[in-house]
Amino acid sequence: MLHPLNPAMAATEPPPVMEARRWLDGVSFPPERPLLNVSQAAPVQPPPLGLRQALAEAALNDDAAHLYGPVLGLPALRAEIAVQWSAAYGGSIAPGQVAITQGCNQAFTSVMSTLAGAGDEVILPTPWYFNHKMWLDMQGVRTVPLACGAGLIPDPEAAAALITPRTRAIVLVSPNNPGGAEYPAEVLRAFLDLARARGLTLIVDETYRDFDSRHSLLQGGRPHDLFADPDWSDTLVHLYSFSKAYRLTGHRVGAIIADRARLAEVEKFLDTVAICPSQLGQIAALWGMRNLGSWVAGERDEILSRRAAMVAGFDQLEGWSLMGCGAYFAYVAHPFAASSHDLARRLVSEAGILLLPGTMFRPEGEGRSEFRIAFANVDASGIAELFRRLAAFRH
Amino acid sequence: MLHPLNPAMAATEPPPVMEARRWLDGVSFPPERPLLNVSQAAPVQPPPLGLRQALAEAALNDDAAHLYGPVLGLPALRAEIAVQWSAAYGGSIAPGQVAITQGCNQAFTSVMSTLAGAGDEVILPTPWYFNHKMWLDMQGVRTVPLACGAGLIPDPEAAAALITPRTRAIVLVSPNNPGGAEYPAEVLRAFLDLARARGLTLIVDETYRDFDSRHSLLQGGRPHDLFADPDWSDTLVHLYSFSKAYRLTGHRVGAIIADRARLAEVEKFLDTVAICPSQLGQIAALWGMRNLGSWVAGERDEILSRRAAMVAGFDQLEGWSLMGCGAYFAYVAHPFAASSHDLARRLVSEAGILLLPGTMFRPEGEGRSEFRIAFANVDASGIAELFRRLAAFRH
Repeated sequence: MLHPLNPAMAATEPPPVMEARRWLDGVSFPPERPLLNVSQAAPVQPPPLGLRQALAEAALNDDAAHLYGPVLGLPALRAEIAVQWSAAYGGSIAPGQVAITQGCNQAFTSVMSTLAGAGDEVILPTPWYFNHKMWLDMQGVRTVPLACGAGLIPDPEAAAALITPRTRAIVLVSPNNPGGAEYPAEVLRAFLDLARARGLTLIVDETYRDFDSRHSLLQGGRPHDLFADPDWSDTLVHLYSFSKAYRLTGHRVGAIIADRARLAEVEKFLDTVAICPSQLGQIAALWGMRNLGSWVAGERDEILSRRAAMVAGFDQLEGWSLMGCGAYFAYVAHPFAASSHDLARRLVSEAGILLLPGTMFRPEGEGRSEFRIAFANVDASGIAELFRRLAAFRH
Repeated sequence: MLHPLNPAMAATEPPPVMEARRWLDGVSFPPERPLLNVSQAAPVQPPPLGLRQALAEAALNDDAAHLYGPVLGLPALRAEIAVQWSAAYGGSIAPGQVAITQGCNQAFTSVMSTLAGAGDEVILPTPWYFNHKMWLDMQGVRTVPLACGAGLIPDPEAAAALITPRTRAIVLVSPNNPGGAEYPAEVLRAFLDLARARGLTLIVDETYRDFDSRHSLLQGGRPHDLFADPDWSDTLVHLYSFSKAYRLTGHRVGAIIADRARLAEVEKFLDTVAICPSQLGQIAALWGMRNLGSWVAGERDEILSRRAAMVAGFDQLEGWSLMGCGAYFAYVAHPFAASSHDLARRLVSEAGILLLPGTMFRPEGEGRSEFRIAFANVDASGIAELFRRLAAFRH
């Protein structure tokens, strides 16, 4: 037995994606039925050539790319985000309200460490993003699950009933991982009002905003009007990831938009855990923001066509139902009596499909009839094949 | 006032290096007396051309360099470390006992999060590395200071007297930041024996080992025999940074050598905070390990010549004394009545020197007569100039 061991860490579940990857061990996939891996929300192609060239150029000729940078990120990238976000959201965001992190998970953990410690409570809608739950567990923070109703949209009134004197924050992810739900602007607004009225922080993680089916930010659409509130910074913290839009998962670049005083606290965490974000990753993100707008729009169109294929497919698949669909994800209910955890393992060997069971996204004992399907990496013929295999799967 | 605010974070001091940098605001440095910045332990030159070319090549042509990698790091880098470390330390280290992190601060925080939570205690020799103290503060872990005696070497017997039922670990940094002390092998061995006997973990951070004056690892020298102990993994955790040896500070690459079961817990933290280390940074570290051995030996020679100049300089500087000197650091006692914190600010405007006061490396109220001078970036003429200015400084 490992000793010493922090009991809060011992009580934290291991990363689900890695458990799922181990299900592949020893399973062979015949050439006529290759593995369909819909377990992870990650691009499988590299970024466009222009971005790779910009990275190579910086690696060769930009000395600063190899040296420490500011803890809260490159000033040029913070300024670019402030300008583009202010325009996109119709609000006023200053460079000093922007921080860069080593990926969006680090954005979340750094912000949450300024909000909640052992014994505090944080409200997460279910199904939740498992790394959020893991951080709260390892910090001894109590996760208060907020069950979503139809369409996997969280209800502000239901959230209000869960608030106690120990509640510190409510965390929303829209478009949602794992649920795929795109939260209506008025729901987000109601959550901001609730959080403000009760003295809580509202964290809104918009990692997947560039693939929202309702509107393109680049073409003037807005997922919400929270930043138009002149006092947004008293309550709102926004999180973003550069990993999906520009295919930069291996470079680890995320961002926080928050009050300056909050970022001064975040800076303590980032200095201690990161010192600074990767310089090359930041250079790549900045190049992408300045040059890849129309390319990202094309990526969005492709994701939306796959989303349409998922909606049509589940419409035809007897006994299954689509609980939510958007961004990279379909969240579905299956028709079998067995638990999704057991079925997911059987789908690997019997159908050549790797997906994640709903049990990984909910409190213990829940999610037995659900799966998350990360469809973004599967093209039209792959999605057709996915439905053939699901239709043929019998329990 | 910021609200909500985790009280443990509120009680954590802001990063000292950044406070010091703010002392430069509004101060002008005439051309005949430019700023001598000896505040930070960081290379100011980029890595050698070959390494930069390898990075550019990977950015252009290695698709995997842009995508998620394994949480615990690239298998090839873990394997290379296992081979080189086993040979260098005369022990047996397996690739599965190696993890890669986004810098050595993250190595420390991820390991410590598996060891100690709120209410636990960790022993740090003083003067300490401030980011270690900051992490313990923000986690609600009590830091137990272990005052060092002559030569800034910690005493295992003094440490033994500080152990309580809540103690979880002892943290040593050798060569030491900020003290410069190179801990004798028998001292490290005594700490291993103590930690094992009392059921604690011994963390040994060897970020600066490549600049140890006593021996070159590349030429068969060994700073200690801890890894030769067949049971090392029941007690020892070793930390390393690629930032100093290969000038990779902007890429954030560090490493942990530890028991596999410990790394399985570390993996929960890293998955949640980082997902994976920067791929390009890992590629750079691996290229450096395979190609820059003799280059690092030359870097060490240069640092050692600067160290000799520091020793000779303080030998001549009336009233000052050198408490420790090694790696990148001289840790010195000054002859003035005023606090080092106030003097450090005055040294900026009156002598054009930026250094850190001892108050930043010790418990509140201590370190008033001490400074840390990070001399690694100052060449022979710069060191001569440093001593001219210090000799002329009057309080």
